[in-house]
Amino acid sequence: MPESKLSKVLTQIEANFDESIARLCQFLKIPSVATDPNRTAECLAAANWLKACFETLGMTVEIRPTSGQPVVLATLEPATPASHLPHVLFYGHYDVQPSDPDELWTTPPFAPQIRKAPNGRDALFARGACDDKGQLMTFVEASRAWLSVHGSLPFRLTVLIEGDEEGDNIHLDRFIAANKKLLKPDIAWICDTEMWSETVPCLSTSLRGCIGEEIIIDGPKVDLHSGDFGGPAVNPIKVLARIIASLHDAKGRVTIPGFYDDIAPLSPAKRKRLAQVPFDAKAFMKNVGLAHAAGEQGYSVLEQVWTRPTAEVNGMIGGYTGVGGKTVIPATASSKFTFRLVEGQKPDQIRKNFRRQVRSLLPDDCRVRFIGTGGSLSGVSVADDSKWIRLASQALEAEWGAKPVLAGSGGSIPVVASLRRHLGVDSLMMGFGLDDDCVHSPDEKYDLRSFHKGTNSWARLIASLSD
Amino acid sequence: MPESKLSKVLTQIEANFDESIARLCQFLKIPSVATDPNRTAECLAAANWLKACFETLGMTVEIRPTSGQPVVLATLEPATPASHLPHVLFYGHYDVQPSDPDELWTTPPFAPQIRKAPNGRDALFARGACDDKGQLMTFVEASRAWLSVHGSLPFRLTVLIEGDEEGDNIHLDRFIAANKKLLKPDIAWICDTEMWSETVPCLSTSLRGCIGEEIIIDGPKVDLHSGDFGGPAVNPIKVLARIIASLHDAKGRVTIPGFYDDIAPLSPAKRKRLAQVPFDAKAFMKNVGLAHAAGEQGYSVLEQVWTRPTAEVNGMIGGYTGVGGKTVIPATASSKFTFRLVEGQKPDQIRKNFRRQVRSLLPDDCRVRFIGTGGSLSGVSVADDSKWIRLASQALEAEWGAKPVLAGSGGSIPVVASLRRHLGVDSLMMGFGLDDDCVHSPDEKYDLRSFHKGTNSWARLIASLSD
Repeated sequence: MPESKLSKVLTQIEANFDESIARLCQFLKIPSVATDPNRTAECLAAANWLKACFETLGMTVEIRPTSGQPVVLATLEPATPASHLPHVLFYGHYDVQPSDPDELWTTPPFAPQIRKAPNGRDALFARGACDDKGQLMTFVEASRAWLSVHGSLPFRLTVLIEGDEEGDNIHLDRFIAANKKLLKPDIAWICDTEMWSETVPCLSTSLRGCIGEEIIIDGPKVDLHSGDFGGPAVNPIKVLARIIASLHDAKGRVTIPGFYDDIAPLSPAKRKRLAQVPFDAKAFMKNVGLAHAAGEQGYSVLEQVWTRPTAEVNGMIGGYTGVGGKTVIPATASSKFTFRLVEGQKPDQIRKNFRRQVRSLLPDDCRVRFIGTGGSLSGVSVADDSKWIRLASQALEAEWGAKPVLAGSGGSIPVVASLRRHLGVDSLMMGFGLDDDCVHSPDEKYDLRSFHKGTNSWARLIASLSD
Repeated sequence: MPESKLSKVLTQIEANFDESIARLCQFLKIPSVATDPNRTAECLAAANWLKACFETLGMTVEIRPTSGQPVVLATLEPATPASHLPHVLFYGHYDVQPSDPDELWTTPPFAPQIRKAPNGRDALFARGACDDKGQLMTFVEASRAWLSVHGSLPFRLTVLIEGDEEGDNIHLDRFIAANKKLLKPDIAWICDTEMWSETVPCLSTSLRGCIGEEIIIDGPKVDLHSGDFGGPAVNPIKVLARIIASLHDAKGRVTIPGFYDDIAPLSPAKRKRLAQVPFDAKAFMKNVGLAHAAGEQGYSVLEQVWTRPTAEVNGMIGGYTGVGGKTVIPATASSKFTFRLVEGQKPDQIRKNFRRQVRSLLPDDCRVRFIGTGGSLSGVSVADDSKWIRLASQALEAEWGAKPVLAGSGGSIPVVASLRRHLGVDSLMMGFGLDDDCVHSPDEKYDLRSFHKGTNSWARLIASLSD
C-alpha cells in the first residue's frame, strides 16, 4: 500500500521540516567554493559534513580523491538484499559558485537567512541555497524521513556528491570512467534543475553539450599606421570577420562540414510534443528585447534552444577599442566561440572540423592559434517515455497539482553526459529551482516551498518504487 | 646672381646655427598640447612666442581666433612691392602631440636636450622637435638669414601657423574658408613631411584623405546566456562580422557602391614613374612581418599605399574578452573604421553610402548607431611637373647631393585639402623628418643635420626666386 506508506513519510517530513532547514543551514555555512584555490579546506569540510550526514542515515560513506576536489560516495543496501530492486545513483554537488561581488548581497553569502524574497514568498538566502546544496538536500531529507518511518529504501542507493561542478567537469568524468563497476546504476537521479514556473514542475529530458574554442589571428608583427600601410597590410580583424561570417549560411545553418551529420531529424511526434509545451516564445524573446528567431530557419524558438546545435561567438577583440579613433591596423585579433551540441554530435570531430575551416580561410601572412576550452561535453537527451519519466511525472503531478513539463534545456549538466558515455545510463532530472533564484548571482535563494514540496516529491517517487 | 646671393645666406645660416638652435629650444619648452583642455594657456603662449619671433623678422603679425586654438598670421611685403612677385603662403603648426607616456622619455619632453640618437647622429630631443616646431623653424631661420643679408624676400610672404593640426582639422578649415581673400597665395609651402631616407630628400605630391566611422550594433537588451538563448537570439558580433566581411570582394576591392567612381585611373605614365621609385616593397613589408600585398589585386604595394583608397577596421570589440570563457551572447558589438581616400573621392558621399550598406545588412532585432569621426578629409594630389616641384627639386639636389624622390603618402595633412578646396591652391611639401624621429612617440627628436640642411634647402629655394 504505497499510499499509506507515503502519507506517514509526508507527515514525518512536515513534522521535521524545521530540523531539515537547520541541517541545510549548517551545510550552507561552509564556503565550499572549489574554484578558489584558498578554499580547499572548506571543500573538504563540506565533504566531511556530508559524510557525517549520510552516516546518520545508516549509509556506508567514503570520501574519495579525484584529480580535483574529493567526491563523497555513500551506499545503502535494502534491508533484504533483493536483486530485483533497482539501483539508483543520486548525484549532486557540494561546491558552489564564488560569492563575489559580496557587497551586493543583502546578508552575507555564507550566513543563511530566511526572509521574504522579492516574489513575496519565504526563502532561504545563501550561496548554494539552491545550487546545489538545497536541491540535493531535498532528496537526502526525503530519504531520511522514509528511513525513519520504514527502516529501508525500496532500492539500492548510491549517492555521489562531487565538488567540481562549477569548475572543470573533467575530474568527475575521470572518476566515473575509473569506477564504472562501483557506480553502474539503473538510473541516475539528479536534483539540479528548475521548475517550469513557480507552480508547474518540470523534468528535463535533454541538455545541450558545449565545447569552447578561442582563436587568435596574428598578422603584422606590430600594430601598423593605417595611412602608411593601409592597402598592402593584411588586417587580422577583417580575416576574423570573414571567418565568423563564414560560419553560417543564409538560412542560419552552421557551415562546418559534417556539423549536422550525426543528429537525428526532429520527428513529427517530437515536434508535436514541443508545440504543446506551454511556452510563450513571443514573451520569452520580448523579455530580452527581441522579436525574431535569428537561428536556423524552419525551427521554432523552442526547437532551436532544445534540439538544435549552435556556433556562437561569445567575445571578440582587436585593435583600438578606446574612446575616439586610432588609425591602426592591428597585429592581432581574437575571438571566443562556443558550440552548443545536441545528442549525436561528436565534440572532438566538430572541434577538428572547425579548426580546419578556420585554417582554410587564413590568408597569406596570417597565423592562427587555437585555445580549446570547455572540455568535450556532448549533448544528451533521455527518452521522454521511460518508466522513470512516468513515475516521476506521477509523483510531481500528485505533489504539485500540475502535470510536469518535459523540457529540453539549452544549457549543460556535465555529469549527465559522463554517465551516458561511461555507464550508458540515463538521468532523471527533477529539480525545484525557480527562475529568480539567482543561482550564480548575489542573493541566491531557495524557496521554502521548493525545499518542502521538493522533499515531498522525492518521497512520492520513492513510494512509487515501494510495493 | 642668385649663386652669390645664396652663398652669403648659407654662410650666415652656418654662423648663426647655435642661435637658431637656441631659439628652437625656447619654442620647444612651451608644452602646447592643444588636445589637452588644461593647456590652453600654453597654446596661446606658443602663438605669442611665434608672434614675437616673426616681428624680429620685420613681419606684420596678428594672432587670430578660430573655433579652436588661435592661429598666427604674419605677412611680409617685398621691399619694392612688385605685382609680378609670387605670393607664398608658408604653413606650419605650433601644437604638438601629447607627451604621454612621460616615463618612457629619456629626458623630459619639454626640456629639450641635444645628444646622440640611436642612429649615432646628434639630434635635439623634445616633443615637437620634429613635428612641427623644428620643421617650421627651418623655413623661419632661412628667411631670417636671407633677410639679414639681403633685407627683403623675393616674394610676398604670408605665414600661417595653426594650433589644431594634431586635433580637429575643422577649425583651420573654417578659418581658411572665412579668409579666402587674405590668404590666397600662388603656392603653399609646407615643412611637415619626411626625407625619403637619411640622405635622400623627398617632395610629397599626394596625400590620402581620411574619414572615420564608428558603428555600434545593439541586439538583445542584455547579455544573454548562450545555452538558454543560443539559437533564437541574434548575436551582434556575428552581425558586425558579416558587415565587415561584406566590405571587400574576393579581389580586395571595396564593395561600397560608387566607392571608385570618381577616381581617375592610374595612367601608364604614372605607373611607370611609380615603378622607378627607389622603393623596396619586399623590405617594406618584411620589416613588419609581412610578405604579400593583401589589398586590391593588380596594384603594387606602392600603388596601393599612394594611389588607392582603403576601407580599414581599426578596432572591434564585443562580448567577453577576458581570460577563459564566458558563455554569453552579447547585447552589443562595435567597431571603428577609417577610409583612406584619394583625389576625386567625395568623403561625405562615401560616408553616406557606407552607412546605407551597413543598414542594408542589419537583421531584424538589431539597431545601429553611427559615430562619424575624422571630419571629411579629401585625398589630394599635386602636379608633379610644376614649376614649384622643379625649383624645389633643384634646391634639394644642390643641398643634399641626391635627387629628391617625388613621393605619395598613405597618410593625410589636412591643410593641403583645405587649401585645395577653398583656395584652389597647390602645396609644395618639403620636409626633413626621418623615419625614426618618433614624431608621435616618446623621445621625439630632430636630427641637427635635418635642421641645418633643411634651413639651407629653404634658402636655396628662396634664392631660386631671386633675380
